[in-house]
Amino acid sequence: MRTAAVVGVGLIGASVALALSRRGVAVYLLDLDQDAVRTVVALGGGIAGPPDRSVDIAVLAVPPSSVGRVLAEQQARGLAESYTDVASVKREPEQAVADGSADPASYVGGHPMAGGERSGPLAACGNLFEGRTWVLTPSEATSRETLNRALALVALCGAVPVVMESAAHDRAVALVSHAPHVLAALMAARLQHAPEEASRLAGQGVRDMTRIAGGDPGLWGDILEANAAAVADVLGEFARDLAGTVRALRSLAVADASRRAEGMTRVIDLLGRGNAGRSRLPVKPGSASRGAVLPVVIGDRPGELARLFAAVDEAGVNIEDISIDHAAGKPSGLVEMVVAADRAEALADRLIAANWTVQQPHPVYPGRWTDPDRGELRPSLSSAASG
Amino acid sequence: MRTAAVVGVGLIGASVALALSRRGVAVYLLDLDQDAVRTVVALGGGIAGPPDRSVDIAVLAVPPSSVGRVLAEQQARGLAESYTDVASVKREPEQAVADGSADPASYVGGHPMAGGERSGPLAACGNLFEGRTWVLTPSEATSRETLNRALALVALCGAVPVVMESAAHDRAVALVSHAPHVLAALMAARLQHAPEEASRLAGQGVRDMTRIAGGDPGLWGDILEANAAAVADVLGEFARDLAGTVRALRSLAVADASRRAEGMTRVIDLLGRGNAGRSRLPVKPGSASRGAVLPVVIGDRPGELARLFAAVDEAGVNIEDISIDHAAGKPSGLVEMVVAADRAEALADRLIAANWTVQQPHPVYPGRWTDPDRGELRPSLSSAASG
Repeated sequence: MRTAAVVGVGLIGASVALALSRRGVAVYLLDLDQDAVRTVVALGGGIAGPPDRSVDIAVLAVPPSSVGRVLAEQQARGLAESYTDVASVKREPEQAVADGSADPASYVGGHPMAGGERSGPLAACGNLFEGRTWVLTPSEATSRETLNRALALVALCGAVPVVMESAAHDRAVALVSHAPHVLAALMAARLQHAPEEASRLAGQGVRDMTRIAGGDPGLWGDILEANAAAVADVLGEFARDLAGTVRALRSLAVADASRRAEGMTRVIDLLGRGNAGRSRLPVKPGSASRGAVLPVVIGDRPGELARLFAAVDEAGVNIEDISIDHAAGKPSGLVEMVVAADRAEALADRLIAANWTVQQPHPVYPGRWTDPDRGELRPSLSSAASG
Repeated sequence: MRTAAVVGVGLIGASVALALSRRGVAVYLLDLDQDAVRTVVALGGGIAGPPDRSVDIAVLAVPPSSVGRVLAEQQARGLAESYTDVASVKREPEQAVADGSADPASYVGGHPMAGGERSGPLAACGNLFEGRTWVLTPSEATSRETLNRALALVALCGAVPVVMESAAHDRAVALVSHAPHVLAALMAARLQHAPEEASRLAGQGVRDMTRIAGGDPGLWGDILEANAAAVADVLGEFARDLAGTVRALRSLAVADASRRAEGMTRVIDLLGRGNAGRSRLPVKPGSASRGAVLPVVIGDRPGELARLFAAVDEAGVNIEDISIDHAAGKPSGLVEMVVAADRAEALADRLIAANWTVQQPHPVYPGRWTDPDRGELRPSLSSAASG
């Protein structure tokens, strides 16, 4: 691949442009917003405006509902030999291409699983796709040349290609992205009219569980519309499971001992299935590696985290994820660092030697005990002595 | 208050003992596990074994279902003038006290909102309750002296007392803790038999949303049993809202334009309510303060976090929370630090001057855009230039 075009230089489009430019591909940048194009040019992402002759592949980084129209327009002007998109649903664009005036042979659907809360070209980064999954959804009409050009694009961006049918892709993202978003929003909506004293009792659990409910309603409305049937299917199954759980809880609330026992069995079963499902998620998006959690007690002063990370740095260990649980604005708290499982014990020893209060490293999932509120008669064995 | 007893020296009991001992209170430690008692004595948490004469207040840090029995036993031996507990539900112990042989006048229910995934006395910390909410649930039978002794206990632990009825407490924790836990487990359970390719598409959103589903099923079964009716009530309301949402999504999936518009209105309404409910949660548990998110781009090398935190430390700013979103094992990622809102801009300027790539600080909630996967035609204005 020698030449490419990017139509729409938001975060994803601009990041593709940067990644390809670094690898020596000549990238032509198209966007209605000329300021955005100039920004990406300044970042070294390519050349402003359309090419003189067809490029090898064009990446349509436009909203799902625009893919069919933009594809037909760009095919009409002869922008590229092959085309792909980056929309987060894949059935709708495929259908639009099949139903419209576009040529489906030179189009393959694509969905790079990368991004985040950033947006716009200034947040772009040539490494955004490194090691990430990039789904490609060829239709029956997609030519082999087009699929191979898209695979070359994915490889040049450092991503890992996964070929799926468009419908399977949409079912998968309904399950792992869109349905969780709706459920988080439904839970957060329950808090809207909660008594003030109830929200004062909220802890880290409900904050994590509803974090994605802070997303933009308009953007998420578009996403859910484009994948509505698949999301409704997942939520319908969830609703049946929920109804059974409510019945089990009602059984637990009655006096009759055998009904209580039956209710408890069902509740424990659900919680166990939750553990099992949770353990199927990779530690990091797009990663199959398992990490270990290393909990370290720190004081809540500006210097503590810096000192801790300097100590971890000295040990040559990379921190993959981190969470901080501490009392509001007061000294002392627990930092949990996720590190490679095979480095955790050695790091713990070094930190203890440096007078850090370190608890026993443990696997990330499952069985993490998250009840913040429970007193115990007997101490557990989960803790190790500090130095 | 001069003397106290702690029955059950797990994390919570041992932390109470440490907090009181630091303030000069003579604390007597009781537990079936003598090793645990010795540990807390070694940590400076008090004196092993029962006192010679009644102490001012005894803290029963035992499971919810044991409170009534342990209270009656300790009242019979004259352990204390007043008693409180730390169980995460409050109706069940209150009822057990009212129905059993214990004297309800010298008992007031209590629930400190602190703890975390740690357990056992070695994880104890005298600052565990600093700034945290500590609920007290006096019954009609509770004497004024007992309530005042419990208020003194809470003050000595540095916590903020909130007096509630036991039933209101249980409804509140059903809403902000127990129902979210069940819903996270139900969502995680959907992942159990997901195709392998689907779990490869899982990102940070579903990880956050299901994090608490990793909790211990046995422990959570006990918690849910003790509060089953209140949890079932919250989930019942959730189920009605969910059914409406599934109907709205089904409308979105049909061809008829007016039904689609109606479905979209309902979906947008739900997502907006989710934003609103989400914004009612404090940034930190037990805190009413609002923070600002400061996003900083880092390389995924061992030294990067250390250097960043050293720079933040130099600026004299405290990090209240943090999240890292980065490509799997590869260079570059985004660190989002939550800092005091009035320090965020100045910190951003300092970091930019030190050559960090910093994005525009923004409020923590609502409106955080969490779709990791969406391409855009137009860049947004959410990003600021780096130095």
